[in-house]
Amino acid sequence: MNDSHAFVNILATLIAIILATKLLGALAQRLGQPSVLGELLAGVLLGGSVLGIIDPQGPVVFALAELGVLILLFEIGLHTELGSLVRVGGTAASVGVVGVILPFAGGYVAAVLLGLETLPAIVCGAALTATSVGISARVLSDLGQLDRTEGRIVLGAAVIDDVIGLIILSLVTGLAAGVAPAPLPILKTAALAFGFIAAAIVIGRTLVPTIFGWIARIEIAGTLGLFGLAFAFVLAWLAEHAGSAMIIGAFAAGLILNPTPQRRTIERATTEIGHFFVPVFFAAVGAAVDIRSFLDPATLAIGGALIVVGIAGKMAAGFAPWWFKGNKALIGAAMIPRGEVGLIFAQMGLATGAIDVALFSAIALMVMVTTFAGPPLLQHFAARDAIPSEVDRPGQGGVDDLVAGEYGRRKR
Amino acid sequence: MNDSHAFVNILATLIAIILATKLLGALAQRLGQPSVLGELLAGVLLGGSVLGIIDPQGPVVFALAELGVLILLFEIGLHTELGSLVRVGGTAASVGVVGVILPFAGGYVAAVLLGLETLPAIVCGAALTATSVGISARVLSDLGQLDRTEGRIVLGAAVIDDVIGLIILSLVTGLAAGVAPAPLPILKTAALAFGFIAAAIVIGRTLVPTIFGWIARIEIAGTLGLFGLAFAFVLAWLAEHAGSAMIIGAFAAGLILNPTPQRRTIERATTEIGHFFVPVFFAAVGAAVDIRSFLDPATLAIGGALIVVGIAGKMAAGFAPWWFKGNKALIGAAMIPRGEVGLIFAQMGLATGAIDVALFSAIALMVMVTTFAGPPLLQHFAARDAIPSEVDRPGQGGVDDLVAGEYGRRKR
Repeated sequence: MNDSHAFVNILATLIAIILATKLLGALAQRLGQPSVLGELLAGVLLGGSVLGIIDPQGPVVFALAELGVLILLFEIGLHTELGSLVRVGGTAASVGVVGVILPFAGGYVAAVLLGLETLPAIVCGAALTATSVGISARVLSDLGQLDRTEGRIVLGAAVIDDVIGLIILSLVTGLAAGVAPAPLPILKTAALAFGFIAAAIVIGRTLVPTIFGWIARIEIAGTLGLFGLAFAFVLAWLAEHAGSAMIIGAFAAGLILNPTPQRRTIERATTEIGHFFVPVFFAAVGAAVDIRSFLDPATLAIGGALIVVGIAGKMAAGFAPWWFKGNKALIGAAMIPRGEVGLIFAQMGLATGAIDVALFSAIALMVMVTTFAGPPLLQHFAARDAIPSEVDRPGQGGVDDLVAGEYGRRKR
Repeated sequence: MNDSHAFVNILATLIAIILATKLLGALAQRLGQPSVLGELLAGVLLGGSVLGIIDPQGPVVFALAELGVLILLFEIGLHTELGSLVRVGGTAASVGVVGVILPFAGGYVAAVLLGLETLPAIVCGAALTATSVGISARVLSDLGQLDRTEGRIVLGAAVIDDVIGLIILSLVTGLAAGVAPAPLPILKTAALAFGFIAAAIVIGRTLVPTIFGWIARIEIAGTLGLFGLAFAFVLAWLAEHAGSAMIIGAFAAGLILNPTPQRRTIERATTEIGHFFVPVFFAAVGAAVDIRSFLDPATLAIGGALIVVGIAGKMAAGFAPWWFKGNKALIGAAMIPRGEVGLIFAQMGLATGAIDVALFSAIALMVMVTTFAGPPLLQHFAARDAIPSEVDRPGQGGVDDLVAGEYGRRKR
């Protein structure tokens, strides 16, 4: 009866997550904010520092949240035409690279100036590098901006800085273990991460349409959608084993299936299943925040410095592609939310002893503020040019809706 | 990073479950068998006694499987019109009731004669009671018999014995939890189970349409479906705390939502989400089967006795309404498949320690054989009076499709 008893508690947690994320999401939307903000807030309220209903480290909630972010990235990939990413490749790369270098350097310098040692200062810089692609895409989608060229650039840049972030993560892990950074392993990690995406897309585009043509002949309802999901899980698994990140694999799976005739069916099924899983991810991210740590002045000082650097660095990165004629401030604002990736750095730093609990809280504060500051800033800059610019295929319903699985008021 | 590592393994398990259940399900269908048999077989192959990929007691797979069975029962409830439960004639009621009493008594007596204790013998009898309404309806529909009077009687009787089976399940759950088999606790459990359904339905029918009318005004996609699911989880949680079984709560939630205008939307979302979760349940149940125990003569003896009682009891139930002038053998044969409900009993018995793996395997053997034997027997008796009858109304969807989440060839 232990498992059954544990399951009853999980059921209660899921009920709380569904009700809180949907109600606060609806409230956020009614207040003109992206609904993901309400979902994150729901997580904070349900988390250990307030109500204590969600334990984001419990195995089941952790697994559901991880499935949620994989499904989210798969949905984003499904709605992303590869060509549109390639077309903005140079612009996205400049945003991504500058958006890693500036926050990393700024975070390191700020931490050293505030009296930290080299290793904790490196962890601070590293935690500032990676934009949360899930949260950024979701916010853009809530605001109907994902189909714009700016949205594509943000998506590409976020994927690029995720990959760079992984490389930095493995470096920092090595440093914390006392291994000096050497150029060859760094190059190897980079080649593996980028090579995985390239290989998956090249091989996938050749084989996958044929395979999904066969699968489409299985006449059991739900088969196509489930095989699509299984494909995303397979690429996520392969990505992890190739030294890349699972979310990159799930995103690549979506990119590969985007041009297939089965895409619509897979999309519909994935969106419905995502409605269940994705809010668990956002709630789990919110639940990792400990609001009590905000009361300590030292934590607030370092956290405040990291917030300033984290926002300024990504905003500046938005202006890196000086040749781009679009809304650069929108791009920068969209890159601000750090979300789960920053927390992974902080947790790793804490686990290896590279940073202490106070610094962990400071980083968590930075993550929380950037995650919550991103959406309103993004909305501010999006409103500045209210001309719905080069929205590709307007009649289509919009990537934005389907990525998040949310149909905004305007779309109905 | 330990959790990440564990999650990668869970991902591999899920990939294996999705691929194996869908492929073997499609194969079973191509061989003229219900696809649920293929899903069970997939679980057996992935389980500890063959490939060792699924550990049905691992917390995440266990939770996903439990969510699967709750969603399945919620789907069954959603498709059950309460009026049809009340209005079905004495004919269906007599088939249903006799079809519970005879197999239960026969299974109990056979098990005791073969040397089992009281509690395991009760689980044996209980596992024989409930016809799988999904499989029976699906087979009748495939044979074009669903619109005959006999088909309607079978549907009514199967729904009735499902409800009685659910009551028995909660009785057995109470017994397995250590409640001595005394008349008063049994009556109390029965009263709780009946009372819970009655109270849930009376209160639910009054309040729920209003509440779901409000929820329908939240303009975020997926909200209705997710609130429907949350409602099922809430009733499951309440049922568990009221001393009943979680699946009774999920079933009652479906019954309550059946007449609401939001039912179609909830149904569509639940079916898509069920496509992911329900096969995990069948695979987990299959994985709990230890095929090595089929080599044990004692298991084979008990399994064989249960098969004989299971087939004879339901065939006899078909002849219970002596006043009915139609094809009674057809009715009896249609009641034979036990499918998921028998497996729920067996799994519950195993989880609570009421039965051991050998007896679980014997019950699983009975479920597999009755599920396999039903369709050909039904076909045989249907052919005896080859009245060409109208194929089921396509607009209706068919209980069979939605229960199993399977759309037959003709439905697409």
